[in-house]
Amino acid sequence: MTYAAAEARFRELGNLGDASSMLKWDEAVMMPAGGGEARARVMATLAGLHHDRLAAPEVADWLAAAEADADGLDAWQRANLREMRRSWRDAAALPGDLVRAHSLARSRCEHAWRTARGRNDWQGVLPLLEELMGLTRAQAQALAEPQNLPAYDALVARFQPGIAVATIDRLFGELRRVLPPLVDRVIGAQAAPTPVPGGFEIPVQKALAETLMRQLGFDFEHGRLDVSHHPFCGGVPDDVRMTTRYADDGILDAQMAVIHETGHALYNQALPAAWRTLPVGKAAGMAVHESQSLTMEMQVGRSRPFLAWAAPVIEAALTGRVGGDGAFSADNLWRLATHVERGLIRVDADELTYPLHVILRFEMEKRLIDGSLAVADLPEAWDASMREMLDLSTGDDHRDGVMQDVHWFAGLVGYFPSYTLGAVMAAQFFDATRAAVPDIEDAIGRGEIAPLREWLRTEIHGRGSLLEMTDLLVAVTGRGLDVAPYVAHLERRYVARAW
Amino acid sequence: MTYAAAEARFRELGNLGDASSMLKWDEAVMMPAGGGEARARVMATLAGLHHDRLAAPEVADWLAAAEADADGLDAWQRANLREMRRSWRDAAALPGDLVRAHSLARSRCEHAWRTARGRNDWQGVLPLLEELMGLTRAQAQALAEPQNLPAYDALVARFQPGIAVATIDRLFGELRRVLPPLVDRVIGAQAAPTPVPGGFEIPVQKALAETLMRQLGFDFEHGRLDVSHHPFCGGVPDDVRMTTRYADDGILDAQMAVIHETGHALYNQALPAAWRTLPVGKAAGMAVHESQSLTMEMQVGRSRPFLAWAAPVIEAALTGRVGGDGAFSADNLWRLATHVERGLIRVDADELTYPLHVILRFEMEKRLIDGSLAVADLPEAWDASMREMLDLSTGDDHRDGVMQDVHWFAGLVGYFPSYTLGAVMAAQFFDATRAAVPDIEDAIGRGEIAPLREWLRTEIHGRGSLLEMTDLLVAVTGRGLDVAPYVAHLERRYVARAW
Repeated sequence: MTYAAAEARFRELGNLGDASSMLKWDEAVMMPAGGGEARARVMATLAGLHHDRLAAPEVADWLAAAEADADGLDAWQRANLREMRRSWRDAAALPGDLVRAHSLARSRCEHAWRTARGRNDWQGVLPLLEELMGLTRAQAQALAEPQNLPAYDALVARFQPGIAVATIDRLFGELRRVLPPLVDRVIGAQAAPTPVPGGFEIPVQKALAETLMRQLGFDFEHGRLDVSHHPFCGGVPDDVRMTTRYADDGILDAQMAVIHETGHALYNQALPAAWRTLPVGKAAGMAVHESQSLTMEMQVGRSRPFLAWAAPVIEAALTGRVGGDGAFSADNLWRLATHVERGLIRVDADELTYPLHVILRFEMEKRLIDGSLAVADLPEAWDASMREMLDLSTGDDHRDGVMQDVHWFAGLVGYFPSYTLGAVMAAQFFDATRAAVPDIEDAIGRGEIAPLREWLRTEIHGRGSLLEMTDLLVAVTGRGLDVAPYVAHLERRYVARAW
Repeated sequence: MTYAAAEARFRELGNLGDASSMLKWDEAVMMPAGGGEARARVMATLAGLHHDRLAAPEVADWLAAAEADADGLDAWQRANLREMRRSWRDAAALPGDLVRAHSLARSRCEHAWRTARGRNDWQGVLPLLEELMGLTRAQAQALAEPQNLPAYDALVARFQPGIAVATIDRLFGELRRVLPPLVDRVIGAQAAPTPVPGGFEIPVQKALAETLMRQLGFDFEHGRLDVSHHPFCGGVPDDVRMTTRYADDGILDAQMAVIHETGHALYNQALPAAWRTLPVGKAAGMAVHESQSLTMEMQVGRSRPFLAWAAPVIEAALTGRVGGDGAFSADNLWRLATHVERGLIRVDADELTYPLHVILRFEMEKRLIDGSLAVADLPEAWDASMREMLDLSTGDDHRDGVMQDVHWFAGLVGYFPSYTLGAVMAAQFFDATRAAVPDIEDAIGRGEIAPLREWLRTEIHGRGSLLEMTDLLVAVTGRGLDVAPYVAHLERRYVARAW
């Protein structure tokens, strides 16, 4: 009975969260600028009510009683109870006023960032970012206390439960040793690709994007594709709202972004239908989520066999003919999709330099939260890190520096490591796929994604949060987090030129 | 202090309502069909929480204490207190479970109607409509009891407080006597207009719509225009979401729909900024709201002087040239915009026959709620009424009969009278404008809407719900509801052919 009462409350909370999720999509994709302040108040109200209904004393009573009498529960219910407890613990640690204040500050800072970024106006957004970062630190400290963790660990755990910052330090340390010499070597050896010509109309690019989404298995009965400043995958599992952006040139980049987001979408669309409103029916953390987008983008989308299948599809969609030569040859598209070049912008980075962008942000986030780096000093610290990691300087152009990513301006601190943890996991998962589905590489070369998708559904998507991330990884791959398969993948692609 | 506590709660409720409003827009404009069931649960959760937070016992205590100590309140606060009390009274009369059940049934019935309507499948949607109508009747009875009203009166009062059904009976009785002979007379005497040619691309039609919206004063910093099955004006005052639909032919109809919805939008965008999250900052009821859309459509948009200004704008936007002859002449556009013809479809009806469609629905709604008409018998009753009122038969095509309007399938019973009450009020208000702004008709002929808009802002929009509808009407026009100015307007336009 008490388990049932808790479940009913968490269905309500799931629906409230879904309302916020859909309104966040609208904010990024549809909302006119003048709607920002009213929307900020709506989001803060929803966040506050979500918090109050979750941290309420009766929920603690229900959970305690359900835990004391868990024998009658099945595996899904027990896992749900574990996840409900985790949610309650975090909510109970935070004062409701702090939740509302953080939500308001988040919306306002993000809206200001949108304008300020275009004008390179760091000073204009700085006070809002300082306020927001102060509230984020206060949240981190409040969340960390009952778990007896350092503050930054508690933020990382909100996005990816079950992974210690010390573990990330170790993994990222290995990558920091391995990657820079590999980048040097690849840049010295690679052949220059021919750019895909630009100037294709947006409806033509969109039709190609939808063709690729369908090929990967996106269900348009339960989702749609729109345009936003940065591509993302939002909405809810029954109604996935994917976005991308189109440019006159960089056509292939836009399509790769679509393939990436489709990886997220496939995860969401295959979450267990009976449980998706409840905590156990959600994805097993954002690093696992990124592993799914990177499976589609890096293991599939940028592979030589997939691009050999896709080349005539892309050429026909854009030009109305299939020649198979020049920029649209499979070889050239593969060279484009695997071209390595040091750059200032994370979202434009290639597969090899991307982790260095993430590590830079991870190191800075830690210091923002432990207080050893002030928000006002971010541009200087950013420039120094860029010089050290990528031998580049941002100078005074903050648009290509600290203002390039929305995350901190949206109150998201602790998220960045998920991208590279996801890349590491994607390589581990794909090794497991190859072992379990022997002809998977040939299937991908024929554009057949169903075997991979079905395997992912069984092993990962359909499990939701039944297993915690660490247990999921062991269940699927036989071992814990390990960078070796990821490094092997990078060497296979960029040194052996074999995938 | 207690007034302040109540106000804080009602700001929260306002934000919750705004979340629902935005998600309703999304449901009609953006949502893929497969998202319907999850959305229904989200909407029911929001409706249920809104109800519970409003009907909570502490709210009753705050309101009672504030009413006992209202001397220190200013006029806005006192009016806000009055409106908060009205909201509380209605919420307290309804059990929370009924609110949630009605919201779920509403969403499900509306989604089913969308599909069933296209297939003329009355039997397919009938059980859902029966369930929903049962819940609507239960709501009506619960709402009516504390006010000691008949059940249907309580539903009408939710959309337009302050107007008795007996008053509507009297006004509609007059129209039912006046209109049919007037329709006969006009149809016998009118000259046939030339249709505007069809086949213009949607982006071209949309650009024209946005030009007209700007001319009327729509603020695109705080709103946008999209496409839906039926035009509507949704969203929130700071972020107005207007929709229309485009067709290959009927170009002028789409533009008139845009002008109509812009009238709603101008009201919303000019609601008092400091109060718009609170009950006193909302519009003074839906009949007043319709009076504003009909002011723009009927008093302005379909007038001879406005169309003389608009004709070259419309022709240039659609054809890229200005000839001023044929279909695009001012005279012809005016004949098109004031052409009278009996038809089956309310939203396609002209100004003269439209009230007959409303009266038909009003009479049927009353019987649905008092129990003298069963939902299953609607098609037969509909056909009989159509024969009597408009001398037409729907036969077995329910798409052109009982299934043409979303209202009942969306749980909206008691709304229909607002359309014709709004038309009556629009004529009364426009008489007052002419008295207060002597050259208003000339200004409209020059396409200058600002004088009218400023007058509406001062007299109506900016007042929100400071005055109740009946007091507002007296304050602005010097008298209560009266069909005489409306009938005079119709005779001036359709008999004297002078506006």
